[in-house]
Amino acid sequence: MSAEEPAKPVRIGLLGRGTVGGAFAELLRERAAAVEAVTGRRPELAGVLTRSEGDFDRILEASDVIVELIGGTEPAREYVTRAMRAGRPVVTANKQLLAQHGDELFDLARAAGVQLRFEAAVAGVIPIVRTIQESFGVTEIAKVFGIVNGTTNFILSEMAASGASYDEVLARAQELGYAEADPSDDVTGADAAAKMAILARLAFHTPVHLDQVPYEGIERIQPDDLAYAKELGLSLKLLGVAERRGEGISVRVFPCFLYRGHPLAPIEGPFNAVMVEAPAITEVTMSGPGAGGVQTASAVLGDLVSILAGEAPVHETRARLPVVADVSSSFYLHLEVADRPGVLARVAAVLGEHEISVKSVVQRGIGDDARLVMVVHECLESRFAAALEELAELEEVRAAPRSIRVIEEEF
Amino acid sequence: MSAEEPAKPVRIGLLGRGTVGGAFAELLRERAAAVEAVTGRRPELAGVLTRSEGDFDRILEASDVIVELIGGTEPAREYVTRAMRAGRPVVTANKQLLAQHGDELFDLARAAGVQLRFEAAVAGVIPIVRTIQESFGVTEIAKVFGIVNGTTNFILSEMAASGASYDEVLARAQELGYAEADPSDDVTGADAAAKMAILARLAFHTPVHLDQVPYEGIERIQPDDLAYAKELGLSLKLLGVAERRGEGISVRVFPCFLYRGHPLAPIEGPFNAVMVEAPAITEVTMSGPGAGGVQTASAVLGDLVSILAGEAPVHETRARLPVVADVSSSFYLHLEVADRPGVLARVAAVLGEHEISVKSVVQRGIGDDARLVMVVHECLESRFAAALEELAELEEVRAAPRSIRVIEEEF
Repeated sequence: MSAEEPAKPVRIGLLGRGTVGGAFAELLRERAAAVEAVTGRRPELAGVLTRSEGDFDRILEASDVIVELIGGTEPAREYVTRAMRAGRPVVTANKQLLAQHGDELFDLARAAGVQLRFEAAVAGVIPIVRTIQESFGVTEIAKVFGIVNGTTNFILSEMAASGASYDEVLARAQELGYAEADPSDDVTGADAAAKMAILARLAFHTPVHLDQVPYEGIERIQPDDLAYAKELGLSLKLLGVAERRGEGISVRVFPCFLYRGHPLAPIEGPFNAVMVEAPAITEVTMSGPGAGGVQTASAVLGDLVSILAGEAPVHETRARLPVVADVSSSFYLHLEVADRPGVLARVAAVLGEHEISVKSVVQRGIGDDARLVMVVHECLESRFAAALEELAELEEVRAAPRSIRVIEEEF
Repeated sequence: MSAEEPAKPVRIGLLGRGTVGGAFAELLRERAAAVEAVTGRRPELAGVLTRSEGDFDRILEASDVIVELIGGTEPAREYVTRAMRAGRPVVTANKQLLAQHGDELFDLARAAGVQLRFEAAVAGVIPIVRTIQESFGVTEIAKVFGIVNGTTNFILSEMAASGASYDEVLARAQELGYAEADPSDDVTGADAAAKMAILARLAFHTPVHLDQVPYEGIERIQPDDLAYAKELGLSLKLLGVAERRGEGISVRVFPCFLYRGHPLAPIEGPFNAVMVEAPAITEVTMSGPGAGGVQTASAVLGDLVSILAGEAPVHETRARLPVVADVSSSFYLHLEVADRPGVLARVAAVLGEHEISVKSVVQRGIGDDARLVMVVHECLESRFAAALEELAELEEVRAAPRSIRVIEEEF
């Protein structure tokens, strides 16, 4: 019998139960055992404050950590400052709060000696805040820029792909839930500006207020701008840019064309992507979904775990999973064959016997020989190996077959 | 006069002074003030151990933290275990050490209550270890995969672009310093396998040894495989894949085709990129330079700072940088003009007067009007605005000019 006392649960006071708040409560329940395994303490909801229910004072009293997912500046500012003054660490996803009251909040966190974490406030599940503050915390960052609003990236991608007008695509985005009924915060660039104010502050260790970030939106983009741009090899993104300029910094949001080959050019749909440039790291690019309830909730949960872990986690074995030997893959198959009728049929018959189906074929003759190149759909690798062995034995096959795996998923 | 005692410097014992070790010593000197600002303690080299100089026992005695950049398993394993037993936190960039002796080392770190950090061991400056262990520390990760060897990605990119053979491109990579004189560790996939063993362990919290990771290299890839693949819309990468399969996991390294549009398809040259997939995050992709002395040293320094910081850093103002108003940009310019001779000349003259030079032009007529679309090189934005105002006044210009910024940099 161990005499060890079980650690007390950690009590979470949750402010807000909208899309993100609801997803967070659900994820916390689902992952409670994992949180306990990593931090040694089981998380419990101490109370939830919504517009119609709950009392902040009682929730604060009953909580070890406050998670603020109300959004907007008031009363979020009041709750967060009162929580930190009461010695509670805070996790928030609130970009407006940090972009407008960052000075006050960071000063208070330092004075109170509590953690204030906010990964979910910028670029959804992409760990850009942690990367800038921790991995590159002593790196002389030259530039942080990227696509930090998924709604506008979805609209621009759709306009480029379909040739439709801004208004048409906006309506479609609203139907799909990618744009809000009042989309102005996103489409004017204001949302991106708040995020860039936060990133600029972290990257350059200097106070940056939302008011110092000029922004342009995408409302005036014309379909023919996108059509001409295609001819010039350009794709359009709404970019946020924070960079050193001379002895100062520049922080802005604007629509911008990128040449093909730019790491941000292939980012399509409601995704975000952020690049960090510095002499000592060259450049690092990070991309992922920009929003979504569960994705944002995941970022919040990551912050909560960091607060509970306190110090850096040391890897710990929590399972002993078997390592699987035989898996399924799709393959490219290259065969040198005699150039005569019936060869493709014989090859296809061998594949068919092994229940392997063909996705695409290229055949080309060279003198007496021909090359038969195909991609086959996913199959158990042992089965493919058996088929390959049999193909190598065919009289029509002139050289050892060559095969390479293919990721079949199309994006 | 403040009576505050200055904090003691933190003494670093550096093992190894090769490419990475040398770059780390240099970077540590350069960024010492930044490290002190973030952690409160100034770093100092307590001693450097090389093959010919230094004594491990004395360096250990004189150090607060050990940074292991020798590489290989012995004597690195001995030094790292002795350091942790003596209560010293350790930073290492040694993938072989962790892939072959991970169980022993992680157990020891936990038993000794010291941090063992190793961001630089996998994917260079990309913060994938921190992301998996911290941001996604309680996330049910389904799959971690990517390009974790820059040498082979350079070779495959060059083969695809030039049509040259593996041997020719390998020789070029060796000349450029992207491949070693004995390239076998990279080209066989062994290096990638060690990195995937580490990532699989972290992602799935299960012991994974290098011996459990089957790997195939790129030595047998033929130029015509790449040529056919192009016809099929595929590009070839050496992939490391760690994923859940049924109740177990599969960890492997193999060359693999990707369809265009796959987030890893555009990763070219000596770069690395890693994707993490989980239901709660969808997918996150991170890319950056895979190696290089200073880049690897940056990752080591990030780990050192994390160890010194102990708890999470709170943002602190360290400068008050001016926010620059007028910056230089390149622009796309769209003009509706009268379709008659001399219009382009007049427009060009206005741009010339403002010292704005044109990069490319597309002109197209529609009835009496024409569209003049151009990209101009970088110029001060105030100057471009003045030119735009003047262009709007031209009698030949039929509608308000439209402009959008362009990132001119070609990749």
